[in-house]
Amino acid sequence: MSSKLRIVPLGGLGEIGKNMTVIEYEDEILIIDAGIMFPENDMLGVDAIIPDYEYVRENRDKVKAILITHGHEDHVGALPYLMREVDVPIYATPLTIGLIEVKLREAKLLQDVTLKTIQAGFNFRLGSFNIEPFHVAHSIPDCVGFGITTPVGLIVHTGDYKFDHTPVDNWPPDFAKLAEFSKRGVLALLADSTNAERPGWTPSEQVITAAFDDLFSQAEGRVIVASFASLISRIQQVGEAAAKHGRKLAITGRSMRNNVKIAQRLGYLELPPDLLIDISEVSKLPAHRVTVMATGSQGEPTAVLGRLATGRHRQLSVQEGDTVVMSAHPIPGNEEMIYRIINRLFQRGANVLYNQVAQVHVSGHASQEEMKLMINLVRPKFLIPVHGELRHLRQHAAMARNLGIHADNIAVVENGTVLELDEHSLKVQERIPGGYVYVDGAGVGDIGHSILRDREKLANGGFVVAIVNVSPSGALIGKPQFVSRGFTDLESSNGLLSGAEKTIAQMAGMQWSSKDELTNRLTGALNRYFYSEIGRRPVVDVVLK
Amino acid sequence: MSSKLRIVPLGGLGEIGKNMTVIEYEDEILIIDAGIMFPENDMLGVDAIIPDYEYVRENRDKVKAILITHGHEDHVGALPYLMREVDVPIYATPLTIGLIEVKLREAKLLQDVTLKTIQAGFNFRLGSFNIEPFHVAHSIPDCVGFGITTPVGLIVHTGDYKFDHTPVDNWPPDFAKLAEFSKRGVLALLADSTNAERPGWTPSEQVITAAFDDLFSQAEGRVIVASFASLISRIQQVGEAAAKHGRKLAITGRSMRNNVKIAQRLGYLELPPDLLIDISEVSKLPAHRVTVMATGSQGEPTAVLGRLATGRHRQLSVQEGDTVVMSAHPIPGNEEMIYRIINRLFQRGANVLYNQVAQVHVSGHASQEEMKLMINLVRPKFLIPVHGELRHLRQHAAMARNLGIHADNIAVVENGTVLELDEHSLKVQERIPGGYVYVDGAGVGDIGHSILRDREKLANGGFVVAIVNVSPSGALIGKPQFVSRGFTDLESSNGLLSGAEKTIAQMAGMQWSSKDELTNRLTGALNRYFYSEIGRRPVVDVVLK
Repeated sequence: MSSKLRIVPLGGLGEIGKNMTVIEYEDEILIIDAGIMFPENDMLGVDAIIPDYEYVRENRDKVKAILITHGHEDHVGALPYLMREVDVPIYATPLTIGLIEVKLREAKLLQDVTLKTIQAGFNFRLGSFNIEPFHVAHSIPDCVGFGITTPVGLIVHTGDYKFDHTPVDNWPPDFAKLAEFSKRGVLALLADSTNAERPGWTPSEQVITAAFDDLFSQAEGRVIVASFASLISRIQQVGEAAAKHGRKLAITGRSMRNNVKIAQRLGYLELPPDLLIDISEVSKLPAHRVTVMATGSQGEPTAVLGRLATGRHRQLSVQEGDTVVMSAHPIPGNEEMIYRIINRLFQRGANVLYNQVAQVHVSGHASQEEMKLMINLVRPKFLIPVHGELRHLRQHAAMARNLGIHADNIAVVENGTVLELDEHSLKVQERIPGGYVYVDGAGVGDIGHSILRDREKLANGGFVVAIVNVSPSGALIGKPQFVSRGFTDLESSNGLLSGAEKTIAQMAGMQWSSKDELTNRLTGALNRYFYSEIGRRPVVDVVLK
Repeated sequence: MSSKLRIVPLGGLGEIGKNMTVIEYEDEILIIDAGIMFPENDMLGVDAIIPDYEYVRENRDKVKAILITHGHEDHVGALPYLMREVDVPIYATPLTIGLIEVKLREAKLLQDVTLKTIQAGFNFRLGSFNIEPFHVAHSIPDCVGFGITTPVGLIVHTGDYKFDHTPVDNWPPDFAKLAEFSKRGVLALLADSTNAERPGWTPSEQVITAAFDDLFSQAEGRVIVASFASLISRIQQVGEAAAKHGRKLAITGRSMRNNVKIAQRLGYLELPPDLLIDISEVSKLPAHRVTVMATGSQGEPTAVLGRLATGRHRQLSVQEGDTVVMSAHPIPGNEEMIYRIINRLFQRGANVLYNQVAQVHVSGHASQEEMKLMINLVRPKFLIPVHGELRHLRQHAAMARNLGIHADNIAVVENGTVLELDEHSLKVQERIPGGYVYVDGAGVGDIGHSILRDREKLANGGFVVAIVNVSPSGALIGKPQFVSRGFTDLESSNGLLSGAEKTIAQMAGMQWSSKDELTNRLTGALNRYFYSEIGRRPVVDVVLK
């Protein structure tokens, strides 16, 4: 009996197979990508979410390499955590390697990790696997997907992609390679599902060039463009438009400046000489000579645009006549903060252009017609939709069925589900235990549901800690002391404080048999008292002294 | 010199003039609408936001009446608060009165308030004002706008509207009345700007009838439709589709059931006899005979759909083959929760239909072409865009300029700004003081920025209260006691607790001159200690005993 190939998308919530995929054959494992998930609004205080690496730890000796598709956070952001678990080389294209180096240097791991630079179009062998990285277009340069020839057949992983015929870097996706894979016969396609709900074809980046040319000709004051720090092609486009219209360009926001440096050094960003100026020079130039590129397109209050919107930027302030361009799409969950910033910029007299009113951004992901083209180009036996929430995977699967792929040959699964393949079959196995792990500050994994529940309660009603002195005989000594935050102004709220004191005195005056019992009773009584008085449920803790 | 008419949109953040507008002439004030704003995600624990009523309080004797355009929360939800400030009659159409009665009864204010039923098309006089309510179409029945003839001219307020030629209740907007206003000459138009970013014409509700017919013919299992509790026309449509396809209909969710009762009693909802069943009867019928309408279309975890998604509904559980329809649009800020619920419903085996994949909802607000039609029908001298965020008002104004209204005749202002009009001029005056007030539980106005800042800090890092015993001579007595929630598991975190104890002992051992000084020093030292150890900033409070 021949062995099976195992494919496991990892993560835990949100998008499936986005942050990490395990490819396993006998005693060899390849890991594709090592990203973080961004917390949702109700994951209070959580900085990032990473997959539970228990499966990787258990199979540490099998892991041969980590292959990276591109340099976005949700694909490389967890390397500082993963590289503490495994000691294997990371394979990625030059720009991606450049971005990973920054990340590992910050985590003080750079010396301990082997980085191997690969090139789209050049294959390499790792154990039983022959790996062919192929170029795809996306919203960061130097992206690849992987063709992986395994003992059971050829697996194709698209990475994040769109079929842009006219990308800014003039490097269209490698259609020929996909066709070649198809000719050889593809056992399974793992394909990006992000835009599975979007009909048609994602517009080319070229559309933006025209839109920017237009807005630069009309803008009378400064042009301030906010975008993703890693969207190198947008920086290229803005730079070219600025140069053409006789403007200088200042780039602000630490992450964007870092990325520009790396991209320039490696030749992925080519700006005219003398175009770039420091942000401190902006005030010396007339408004119509200035362009600024900034971070903060997701409404982050501490990023450059957020500070501009509230007048808290040291070197720059938005003024009447400025044109602010939101050249990004809102990541779900950020809409409210983004619109708030747009409103504030209008308030300061700027004209704000954003996708609802002008085409100043295009997605980096394939829409439905491109997803169909991918399936028909590659013609896989099995389809595994990845990179999307469950709803996107379902739409992707529905499309594939319409293209003639049998429902049994499509695996829509959740993170952690093991898929077993051989030449003839794709079987959905059980989920491996574990899910995801919260990162908060320097703490990885100590935050669980009970702490998040407490944070939610604290967020909604604050807390009251009552410190109560009782004598060994059970009598109340003196007045209880209260510490409270986020509840209400206890001191100045007519009678609330004295009511709480009275509640404690009454309860302590009743029969009780142990300090624990009294503590519980007092806590319950205060909870009820506050709710009946003011309709709120703060976290109440009673300390008996 | 003749007097001026003053128009003041009230509120404070978010949409402008949505929740309340003051119309003032000499010693007479009319109030249009009395709604609540919904808190944004970062207004932690806040239940609702109401305008600051200080201006109303100061001018209490001038207020003659409250006119209500329609029964949505953002137009009537603040009546229980406003009616504590003024003692004047409320004028509204029959269904709106029905909904207001419920609200005032719950607030135990019904006996104290005079409600006056008005009808679209029938005018009435209040002091110097002649008021002509005119019918508009929107996402709740019995909506009106107001024509108000004032001593300086005719003001037209659209309320929330769309130009639906084929609404479910067969009552199209009163185009003739708008044309008549136009003929008489309109001084100022206050017009809904909600969809100012949306090109074209909002589809008619008729579109939904066809979409539902389609999905009911294809559905093999139960059909579960989630929508807004007040969207009576959708309930009508679902009821008709259910009846046509031989299904029964159970309505669940308290607010939706209440609204159905009122709408049926007043004749705004006409369902076939024997259609409605109780939710408890659902399990007795075969799946293809069942339709359920439910609340929770905004992803609220405690509403019916939220409970279905997590398997916490007592009488119903979603099963393989069910079709769930999200017949509503996401209110900005709710996207994340809604998508989470959609994913969970897919997980349970349901097919989920929502606006990205099927047209199962249409907006209740006019799109750009309708907004242009409104302006050209009414041909006002002055335009005051209202009902929208600043970004919407700006787009509305840009459209109006394209239609030939001079920029000087358009007033895009924020809440609280006084507009002064006479026959010839519209002047933007200063903003009145005050803004908005947070409601949390029974507390109105006690929550300010400092409590919200504390809640944000608590949400992100929890709290640690350290209770420290010191002798009068300054020596530490025993070990400090810690109370902590939402931070980390202090007891089980290696060394964190003993490190905190050591930090306190060190600091207390140093020279200090007052208990306040020691408290501050200990707080600072613990803050630094926790941040250096675990990278978090809990709220730290130190209590000296």
